[in-house]
Amino acid sequence: MKAYHAGWVIYYCELSGVAAFAVTGTLMAGRKSLDWFGVITISLVTALGGGALRDVLMAHYPIEWVSNENGFLVGVSASLGTMIWARTLKTFNDRVLLVADAFGLAVFTVRGTDMALQQNLPPSIAVIMGVATAVAGGVMRDVLCNEVPLVFKREVYASISILGAVAYITLLDLQISLEVASAIAIAFVFVSRIAAIRWKWKLPRFDVVD
Amino acid sequence: MKAYHAGWVIYYCELSGVAAFAVTGTLMAGRKSLDWFGVITISLVTALGGGALRDVLMAHYPIEWVSNENGFLVGVSASLGTMIWARTLKTFNDRVLLVADAFGLAVFTVRGTDMALQQNLPPSIAVIMGVATAVAGGVMRDVLCNEVPLVFKREVYASISILGAVAYITLLDLQISLEVASAIAIAFVFVSRIAAIRWKWKLPRFDVVD
Amino acid sequence: MKAYHAGWVIYYCELSGVAAFAVTGTLMAGRKSLDWFGVITISLVTALGGGALRDVLMAHYPIEWVSNENGFLVGVSASLGTMIWARTLKTFNDRVLLVADAFGLAVFTVRGTDMALQQNLPPSIAVIMGVATAVAGGVMRDVLCNEVPLVFKREVYASISILGAVAYITLLDLQISLEVASAIAIAFVFVSRIAAIRWKWKLPRFDVVD
Repeated sequence: MKAYHAGWVIYYCELSGVAAFAVTGTLMAGRKSLDWFGVITISLVTALGGGALRDVLMAHYPIEWVSNENGFLVGVSASLGTMIWARTLKTFNDRVLLVADAFGLAVFTVRGTDMALQQNLPPSIAVIMGVATAVAGGVMRDVLCNEVPLVFKREVYASISILGAVAYITLLDLQISLEVASAIAIAFVFVSRIAAIRWKWKLPRFDVVD
Repeated sequence: MKAYHAGWVIYYCELSGVAAFAVTGTLMAGRKSLDWFGVITISLVTALGGGALRDVLMAHYPIEWVSNENGFLVGVSASLGTMIWARTLKTFNDRVLLVADAFGLAVFTVRGTDMALQQNLPPSIAVIMGVATAVAGGVMRDVLCNEVPLVFKREVYASISILGAVAYITLLDLQISLEVASAIAIAFVFVSRIAAIRWKWKLPRFDVVD
Repeated sequence: MKAYHAGWVIYYCELSGVAAFAVTGTLMAGRKSLDWFGVITISLVTALGGGALRDVLMAHYPIEWVSNENGFLVGVSASLGTMIWARTLKTFNDRVLLVADAFGLAVFTVRGTDMALQQNLPPSIAVIMGVATAVAGGVMRDVLCNEVPLVFKREVYASISILGAVAYITLLDLQISLEVASAIAIAFVFVSRIAAIRWKWKLPRFDVVD
């Protein structure tokens, strides 16, 4: 637990992010006619892939989800629960999912940025690590499902994560304590993401005309 | 050779798995109108990708196929041999391929599980490492060929690998020797996979209806 | 700078390769209707992905582009510049791009091969590392854009990189100095690639007829 600046609170936040991301993986996989092994695998990749990529890029070994099976167990449970739920009720409350996903985005961003700062990486690289932690699992999910990643397509999702990472670093530079800076950055990302969904914010598109 | 619990036998088994997986990569790539560089690359990724992913996730450096060129040489030879064979005879005995692939699945599963146990990882993570070793190369092959991975789609392939890894760990827990446990788990996976092909076993599918 | 056999010259060559590859990523992403975050991400993956893969496979930590932000800054600038240029002028000189890309191919090949030799890897693996450095970024770009990688399809691109890596190793075996061997191998790859474009060289294709 020593490795967690903000202690056990952020650890449980992170596990709830894992659960939320696993649910999005399950729902995406469910649109592709996969079997249960495929669904669970894609859910785990969605939930744990961002953190694994970050750890590999920073050579932060052992990888968090490899040395400790909690992430795996939470991801599998969330995926199985979603499958049973969807089969039983034939319905799924998208709003709950979006809120949970926004929460995962917020926590993963701060966690990834923080880990990079602890390893004394330059601030611009710390931002990349925060965003990679938050976004790469979803990119892997979409690649495995043979789709162009959603996050690359006009949705204000990754940019909020970038702003959140920048905000977190700036707050720490201003000598604000880790706990307060984490809380503010997490709240900022979470609220912005909910607002982006609510008012359908979009980023400008870039098209090459041949 | 010290690193191999079950000694040189499993090493040669593993190289034959590499060859079998390289052949499947070559045949898949041959359906995509690629040039010989593309075909050989996809074959190598299919054959060596699972082991490389396992080693990176466990920080087991140097990666087996990087420090020793045998895997590379066997993979390239199998791929070139398949291309020449297919061009000359215009035919290919699928049965031989499926048997060799089942053998590769069995050996890679046990090898990956065993390596994770040697690193004192939790049992659930050891199962994941066994399955990842056996399956991830094929997933990378399908992603590079722009297909939803075959292994995610209603075929009893990965689940046999999971059961084989669980069986191997259980046998070791029962104080059975490494050699015997390896042999039983390999035989179990191999025979189950052949049975799954023979009687067309399928896993239940999970579909989300919007 | 000590790590660079051929000193600061190759370092600046490498950054220009990063810029060229980032431009190809931007143009490819521009055909997929992505937003600016998607475009920049794909550009960075194209430019830095090959080097990152090489470093991970060789356990050469810290990864070059993680510990030092120059690669990131050059990649982002090249991508933003391309977007602004394309939007303003509605035109893009493909010839400049192809020349820059050929230059990147040449420098990345020699750099990757050289790093593997420094780690005492076998020559065949050094060739793979050279080619992976030069080619894997483009493969990742195409996978993220949901395309079968261009480099696998009948273009004399990767094979020139292979020949360049082999030439570099052979020259070093002949006791030629690092500076001269680098210069010759870089020139060889660059000129061959331009010739391949100019005279439309193609590799034979391999098709499986069912």
